[in-house]
Amino acid sequence: MSNWENLVRKVVPYTPGEQPKNTNVIKLNTNENPYPPAPGVREALQALSEDDVRRYPDPTIGRLVSALAERAGVRPEQVFVGVGSDDVLAMAFLTFFNGEEPVLFPDITYSFYDVWADLFRIPYRCPALNDALQIDPADYLCSNGGIVLANPNAPTGLLLETESIEKIVAANPDVVVIVDEAYIDFGGTSVLPLIDRYENLLVVQTFSKSRSMAGMRIGCAYGSEKLIRYLLDAKYSFNSYTLNAAAIAAGTASAADEAYFAETVKKVMATRERVKPLFAELGFSFGDSMSNFLFVKHDHVPAKEIFTRLRENNIFVRYFNKPRIDQYLRITIGTDREMDILLAFLRDMLCKG
Amino acid sequence: MSNWENLVRKVVPYTPGEQPKNTNVIKLNTNENPYPPAPGVREALQALSEDDVRRYPDPTIGRLVSALAERAGVRPEQVFVGVGSDDVLAMAFLTFFNGEEPVLFPDITYSFYDVWADLFRIPYRCPALNDALQIDPADYLCSNGGIVLANPNAPTGLLLETESIEKIVAANPDVVVIVDEAYIDFGGTSVLPLIDRYENLLVVQTFSKSRSMAGMRIGCAYGSEKLIRYLLDAKYSFNSYTLNAAAIAAGTASAADEAYFAETVKKVMATRERVKPLFAELGFSFGDSMSNFLFVKHDHVPAKEIFTRLRENNIFVRYFNKPRIDQYLRITIGTDREMDILLAFLRDMLCKG
Repeated sequence: MSNWENLVRKVVPYTPGEQPKNTNVIKLNTNENPYPPAPGVREALQALSEDDVRRYPDPTIGRLVSALAERAGVRPEQVFVGVGSDDVLAMAFLTFFNGEEPVLFPDITYSFYDVWADLFRIPYRCPALNDALQIDPADYLCSNGGIVLANPNAPTGLLLETESIEKIVAANPDVVVIVDEAYIDFGGTSVLPLIDRYENLLVVQTFSKSRSMAGMRIGCAYGSEKLIRYLLDAKYSFNSYTLNAAAIAAGTASAADEAYFAETVKKVMATRERVKPLFAELGFSFGDSMSNFLFVKHDHVPAKEIFTRLRENNIFVRYFNKPRIDQYLRITIGTDREMDILLAFLRDMLCKG
Repeated sequence: MSNWENLVRKVVPYTPGEQPKNTNVIKLNTNENPYPPAPGVREALQALSEDDVRRYPDPTIGRLVSALAERAGVRPEQVFVGVGSDDVLAMAFLTFFNGEEPVLFPDITYSFYDVWADLFRIPYRCPALNDALQIDPADYLCSNGGIVLANPNAPTGLLLETESIEKIVAANPDVVVIVDEAYIDFGGTSVLPLIDRYENLLVVQTFSKSRSMAGMRIGCAYGSEKLIRYLLDAKYSFNSYTLNAAAIAAGTASAADEAYFAETVKKVMATRERVKPLFAELGFSFGDSMSNFLFVKHDHVPAKEIFTRLRENNIFVRYFNKPRIDQYLRITIGTDREMDILLAFLRDMLCKG
């Protein structure tokens, strides 16, 4: 090893879900939305001018921040925007978790949390989910350096009620509590209204799932003005101009179309509820997902075997080779047609012979 | 102060140049290119599909990385891409500067370097430029934890020759040396060919200046495969998907059009050389800028006064209220027409009465 390598920050990076180059696949592995973005998004992209490309974008991302603030019924000073919710969360870890006590998040949750903690040398501890893969709020009432909860949790899809989260936030006034609501729009209730009562609460959301805009990289967060100010200071110390002109224009158009948004999430939820009994019939068990995916376990066929057979047939789902969840598959809710193809394949595979 | 604030990373953020909302201004304050991006950029943006928006982009940014590798005559494994060169530099500071010795960069240089060092708690020391505002390579031959050189330097525009940089890189095999070539395309010679001989050299470039794409946020870096691998590991530990579909498509189109690129930088350089004697006639002195800006000092009128008068008349230039350079203005090279309006105004202001 060369000497300069001694000064390198060594990390074990997060592994994102596979993005197959082949477009002729049924892609149910990264929780994308099967429906197109709001019609205004395309118009906004078409309307980009040469000056939009040539000049620096607004570093405050003002148009999008205002649109989000208005929709959420908060002040623009309570809104933060980043390059996907991963960028928002990375910046929040860097900004808010600088103590000696461990930051707390569940043992089974979004697998980027421990990667950010390791990257920034943040101590952490992971209370175990119970046997039903649920979070026990009591695990978060001890001394800690911060708390991160995905709600609904990933990859389980299970929701914690607002009262439980409020209990955790109220019991931890001396640390920042991050609630990652990437999947909240598919039937959950956001804890966003709590930000006016708890200045230490940061609520993170994304345009990647419910707004069908994973390709544009837009995430956002809501909190007290003081909390958001600290986050902005860190962001402006890292990169002044994050969202490009295309993301700002497209995001603002999406945020303005409430009707289309409501219709799209309703369609995804309807498909989810329709397929639940069909998966059950095939021998799968699963919790009550309030997200755009199901986290399923078959009663006798190993998850890895199902994953591999599906993949060989150009159907991509997500398999995590990790303790406690290595018999589960995370299956994104696609269109009705995509789900029917998947179910037909599984029926063939599991019920023959 | 609430207790949670004790855990916050306190920083003093970088202040970017003003982005006036009023579009009816002559904007020579943030070194944007006055000419539009390559024609293919517009076409690439128009061709974005709903699936491009809906699905996650390629996390490897493969198309753009390949295009840049081909143009530079290196392997794709030697190329890194980020959300503007600020994102690339921030990630490089985080990745490579984890020692006890101070990182070195000049006292007068891009004013984001000390902000990143402060953000990541990196010790640093700033050797002073000489009285002609030039870098003395001898200052970089002592023990250190890393080196960052902007070349041409900002905001001076002065170029260090390849031999001087090679001497610094060769003398410092135990640390990473970053050469920030944001302005290299306007007449300088890139040290990119040195990356095959020095595995500790990282060369950073941007699409914001010479490629007229500040609004799309694209920066890149070249280095040894080993160096780039470390940088990618850190990036994948921070945010898997950075460039959005629009930036990938637009950047790839720009990288493919060498003829347009060459023509545009030639026009900017021609204007720069044309206006140099005109600024001199008006009583300004300046070094031999090899960038898309001039760093000028008037022989008797205070810089701040000129800055304010220009701004009142909707002509924006950059003024840094900092020791040693508070009598200078940094003036971006605009179109010939923009420069003529600026010069006419200055003539009026400085030579009357």
